[in-house]
Amino acid sequence: MSDTTRRQLPTLAARAVTQAHGGGGKAMKDLIDDVFVREFTALPEVLEDQARLELAELACLGDRLAMTTDGFVVDPLFFPGGDIGKLAVCGTVNDLAVGGAHPRYLSCAVILEEGLPIDDLRRIARSMATAAREAGVEIVTGDTKVVERGACDGVFITTTGIGVIPAERKLGIERIQADDVIIVNGWLGDHGAAILAARGDLSLDTDLESDCASLNGLIEALLAAAPETRCLRDATRGGVATVLNEMADASRLAIELDDLALPLRKEVRGMCEILGLDPLYLANEGKLVAVVPAAQAEAALVALRGHPLGKEAAIIGQALVGKPGRVTLRTGFGGQRIVDMLVGEQLPRIC
Amino acid sequence: MSDTTRRQLPTLAARAVTQAHGGGGKAMKDLIDDVFVREFTALPEVLEDQARLELAELACLGDRLAMTTDGFVVDPLFFPGGDIGKLAVCGTVNDLAVGGAHPRYLSCAVILEEGLPIDDLRRIARSMATAAREAGVEIVTGDTKVVERGACDGVFITTTGIGVIPAERKLGIERIQADDVIIVNGWLGDHGAAILAARGDLSLDTDLESDCASLNGLIEALLAAAPETRCLRDATRGGVATVLNEMADASRLAIELDDLALPLRKEVRGMCEILGLDPLYLANEGKLVAVVPAAQAEAALVALRGHPLGKEAAIIGQALVGKPGRVTLRTGFGGQRIVDMLVGEQLPRIC
Repeated sequence: MSDTTRRQLPTLAARAVTQAHGGGGKAMKDLIDDVFVREFTALPEVLEDQARLELAELACLGDRLAMTTDGFVVDPLFFPGGDIGKLAVCGTVNDLAVGGAHPRYLSCAVILEEGLPIDDLRRIARSMATAAREAGVEIVTGDTKVVERGACDGVFITTTGIGVIPAERKLGIERIQADDVIIVNGWLGDHGAAILAARGDLSLDTDLESDCASLNGLIEALLAAAPETRCLRDATRGGVATVLNEMADASRLAIELDDLALPLRKEVRGMCEILGLDPLYLANEGKLVAVVPAAQAEAALVALRGHPLGKEAAIIGQALVGKPGRVTLRTGFGGQRIVDMLVGEQLPRIC
Repeated sequence: MSDTTRRQLPTLAARAVTQAHGGGGKAMKDLIDDVFVREFTALPEVLEDQARLELAELACLGDRLAMTTDGFVVDPLFFPGGDIGKLAVCGTVNDLAVGGAHPRYLSCAVILEEGLPIDDLRRIARSMATAAREAGVEIVTGDTKVVERGACDGVFITTTGIGVIPAERKLGIERIQADDVIIVNGWLGDHGAAILAARGDLSLDTDLESDCASLNGLIEALLAAAPETRCLRDATRGGVATVLNEMADASRLAIELDDLALPLRKEVRGMCEILGLDPLYLANEGKLVAVVPAAQAEAALVALRGHPLGKEAAIIGQALVGKPGRVTLRTGFGGQRIVDMLVGEQLPRIC
């Protein structure tokens, strides 16, 4: 339905979220109309408890439905390069896309803290709508809860996505073979570093921005160029190191990385040195790890670099016959160190 | 996959949730394995970012996919008749079923507060698994986030459900016609009253239990007996009054209720009198409002009463040509009062 034909939507008088906005009554309806129905144009004007989607339309895109869910609790809500709304859309789109699915529909459940400025919520909703439009997905259903002051921290958003996997696509980490090549699509750790800087309590002065982006377009370009791609993962919480450990573990292979090949911005490297962090564990929100057979690595790299979100794509390592499940990093000095699974936690509330 | 063939799952040493359990690394993997993979037997042992579901299997059940999402923030987490886990499964199952869908798959995203006892989480997960089994749905994917102490209140759960609507089913509130009959499947307000009593700060001594239950079985029985049923709604937040106001509003009809016909337990009526609450606005978690053409009302009632979750089913009112959107209650004394949409909020954190 186009914006122009939508019924007159109310404009809220309230300037902050109150408990009444979660009560299920008129105040909630007005909030949802004013903030969400206005922005999420795929929502019907009379909201049912559920969205209804034609199965035949989905079946045209493939043979398997993909379903994924993600809760977002990032702190702060707004940061250079994005906000919790953009993150919630891109994160779920990416979870679908790395499995080979065409992302189609999202649901959005928000938990709001009493006192949250309505303008902040509007800004977040607008940001979700923009990110959804750019990724080609529709936000078709949602839920709003309000908790008292102090019972949650501003806004938490849970997005769930469904998409369709084309019949011929067989991506999975169990498909990794020895000699396969490990590729990333660009600078690592930008999201984690940007959030850390945005928290302000470290007085870090930097121009870093989150890399938050929907990767479904990039992934389609990659799979067209390298159809034998074994698997893809987005390297969010836990960073590239965690993804690679899961890959090594599932394939019973070793993975060897080349420190000099890791695409790391000078600022990120510097921040990690100062704070004693390992950039391999920093969260990314627009970076994927692709495992590609060596024969298609060049084609994959060219395809990635030809896309705006893959200009700095690089081969960072290789799967090898070796100690099963072990990930190692060859350092510039000819040494080697083990890259273990993250044991504690590096940065809380990163996404 | 049967429990017996699952790989040896770790047992967590930790007794409370820590920030590390949300970090994306080993601690999180262990928590998910120990608590969720153990209970949710539909989860694969090697978790991908997404569940993959056969479209052909879904197409056997109908022609439209239903998708719905709901966040749960109920306080307290455990209450007579249920807990947040059971509520999260039943609530989403019901949102699907009232639209005529066969509920099939759920996702589950949890936000945990640092310090939450692992045993509480286990109990919640077990309760979700039981409720899912009873409703015939599978929990196929999930997400876990941890926030610092004080940044959320124990556990918040967002469940998203997908189901399939059979081709012949056409339920919708726009289908309500004058003279249609309004039916509920039993005692109203039990959930709201039970939660209120469980909060303890009112020192109410009662045996009331939440009516939390999955209604998909009951709904199938109803639709078999009364196939012309116009629409169904579950009367959760905002209670029966809110549902009826939405129905009256969408159909441009009036709805008249009969106070003497409302199935209300003596305890609920009493509690409402003491506290100045209106039972029509109390939340239910196992009650639906069905609008049925008068000719099928008797058949509907018989079908509902023949089901364990509908023994106290009753006709409570009727849609009429009258002031469009107006809901009124005929009182026992021959009077009449308007039942408006809930304006403020009655009870926060009820679901």
